[in-house]
Amino acid sequence: MRIAIVGCGQLSRMLALAGLPLGIKFSFINDNYQQATDCVDGLGRVVPLTKDWQEEQNIHNLYNRLGKPDLITVEKEQVDIKLLKALQAHCDILPNIEAIAACQHRYREKQLLEKLAIPTSPFAYSLPANEALKVLQLPMVVKSCRDGYDGKNQWVLKTLADIEDFDRLNIQDYIIEAWIKFEREVSLVSVRSKSGDIEHYALTDNIHENGILLQSIAPAIDQNNTLTIKAHTYMEAILNAVDYVGVMAMECFVVNDELIINELAPRVHNSGHWTQAGSVTCQFENHIRAVAGLVLGSTASLGTTGMINLIGNEQPPLSSLSVLSTLHWYNKLVKAQRKLGHVNFFDKDQVSLVQQMDDFQCAIKLNNIS
Amino acid sequence: MRIAIVGCGQLSRMLALAGLPLGIKFSFINDNYQQATDCVDGLGRVVPLTKDWQEEQNIHNLYNRLGKPDLITVEKEQVDIKLLKALQAHCDILPNIEAIAACQHRYREKQLLEKLAIPTSPFAYSLPANEALKVLQLPMVVKSCRDGYDGKNQWVLKTLADIEDFDRLNIQDYIIEAWIKFEREVSLVSVRSKSGDIEHYALTDNIHENGILLQSIAPAIDQNNTLTIKAHTYMEAILNAVDYVGVMAMECFVVNDELIINELAPRVHNSGHWTQAGSVTCQFENHIRAVAGLVLGSTASLGTTGMINLIGNEQPPLSSLSVLSTLHWYNKLVKAQRKLGHVNFFDKDQVSLVQQMDDFQCAIKLNNIS
Repeated sequence: MRIAIVGCGQLSRMLALAGLPLGIKFSFINDNYQQATDCVDGLGRVVPLTKDWQEEQNIHNLYNRLGKPDLITVEKEQVDIKLLKALQAHCDILPNIEAIAACQHRYREKQLLEKLAIPTSPFAYSLPANEALKVLQLPMVVKSCRDGYDGKNQWVLKTLADIEDFDRLNIQDYIIEAWIKFEREVSLVSVRSKSGDIEHYALTDNIHENGILLQSIAPAIDQNNTLTIKAHTYMEAILNAVDYVGVMAMECFVVNDELIINELAPRVHNSGHWTQAGSVTCQFENHIRAVAGLVLGSTASLGTTGMINLIGNEQPPLSSLSVLSTLHWYNKLVKAQRKLGHVNFFDKDQVSLVQQMDDFQCAIKLNNIS
Repeated sequence: MRIAIVGCGQLSRMLALAGLPLGIKFSFINDNYQQATDCVDGLGRVVPLTKDWQEEQNIHNLYNRLGKPDLITVEKEQVDIKLLKALQAHCDILPNIEAIAACQHRYREKQLLEKLAIPTSPFAYSLPANEALKVLQLPMVVKSCRDGYDGKNQWVLKTLADIEDFDRLNIQDYIIEAWIKFEREVSLVSVRSKSGDIEHYALTDNIHENGILLQSIAPAIDQNNTLTIKAHTYMEAILNAVDYVGVMAMECFVVNDELIINELAPRVHNSGHWTQAGSVTCQFENHIRAVAGLVLGSTASLGTTGMINLIGNEQPPLSSLSVLSTLHWYNKLVKAQRKLGHVNFFDKDQVSLVQQMDDFQCAIKLNNIS
């Protein structure tokens, strides 16, 4: 079996590293002409998308150059839907194109959540900020419908002056959301098979800084399972509504024991990287199992697990590893604010885990200074 | 960091798949001119050994073509010691050459065990079988000193006629061992770091057929830890005696709560494949951590784990996988009696594990018949 993945980043890398042991071969579509392919080099064929891909003969050639994959999946939501539709003439696209389309545009995502009566923050679509002020209160946050990730293309509006400034920018295609004063952020990563089976990983506590995920700990603190039960209900409603196949992630704000859904990702997710160390089957293998039509692997947790993202570090911090931690380094070109790798931590309880993660952070800081 | 491995088989494949996430790059020396390199294709540079490697300039070229690795390790004991010594002029060889040399020759291995007063079966070295009969009783087993693995180049002598037949074969360089009537076979896989730290994986129960490992279950049945304590003592004596760095495996016969050491392997081992599913850090990552000079990862078990070798199967048995099993397929050319992959099983207790493994064996048989 051969699977092609759209995208050549670290998620494609880890999908391939999890799928190669199953005897599955991989190809990667480089749909970003400037993107380096270091993450996936050596793990399968890398085929750059040519600018004239729209012609029928060229799509046919692309499919052939990919090695005639049995199916195509994605490592990101920002994929040209027209490209996926053209490729669908040759093989399955999983998760299905409608699901990817819904998650790649914040307004369509909001519509999906509202249709399913799943709590999400109040919003206005493509209104000037001063109009949005009639339905929302300050502070508000503006998010580009398409190009926002890791906190990019977002604007926080705190004052009337901010509103005037933003409206002058003349940004297109955005939503303006009420600013949610959340207590903490959690996420749920789940997987649905072709036959409709759903498995959930443990609810995960996440800490972001400037919109970038810094660290996760799983299982999340969740008295009486209140949040977990709600998260499962919402996730199952979404997965079944769009007949989803593969791994999906749901990011949520926690406010007074309620979940407010912030974002969906139709793919493996940074807040599920801990599953490589802390679950029977990691999210990457389970995404491959799902789209390949196999029975899902167990998502059961094996202990308490944490993950720290390595952002803009110069070297894999091998000497800072401990007996209960391991590293995933993505082979990327080093750039400030870029996710270059992550470290997973495993422990018997949350207290020792947090101590371990703190020790690692200190060791990293010392290394960077010396 | 770049590590070169001598050999292009499944052990090199799994070492690379475990080391790539750490940001380590790999090269492979193909020292067997007929060997296909499918197992490691795409995971790093593959450099075939040329027949004139002995010349100093050619060794220099080989080292350069490997990408000037920081160190060289092995996936097998049958490596030309002269080649390793020549390469040592350029970088470290780990485990050290003396340890590999001792384990690659059954008589030297026996000498090492006897020097350390570790129990092993009585034997005669390079005597005709009819002479060996003066010190050993029938049945006896003859093992080539160098070329025996998976039951190859071994002869069981049960009668005086067998003895005459064997002596007429005129075989060179062998040992004749007393046939051990063992109750069961266990193995211990351990790892020693550059700083001398030693970690042991759980003792493993193994079942062989015609000299080939069929399946493993870990932890092994071991009342009061009697066998485990002995195995640790023997292993630590061996590792420290030869200043070993990396993973070593020790195969043992169990007779009346005693261990009789059958064989040492200076490398990752088939009976440790279960560690991919059932331990915090698998044997492959720990070998890489040891030779790379890193702190060892935890060898703690996460539950009960089993492994079934896939021998001479035509296809990866993806459709036979269950929620608690996963597959490692090696991408080899299919041949009868060849190890083509293995399946790891994880479970909460030994009873459910054995049931799961039986179900898998049945599913495989049905698939092969239909």
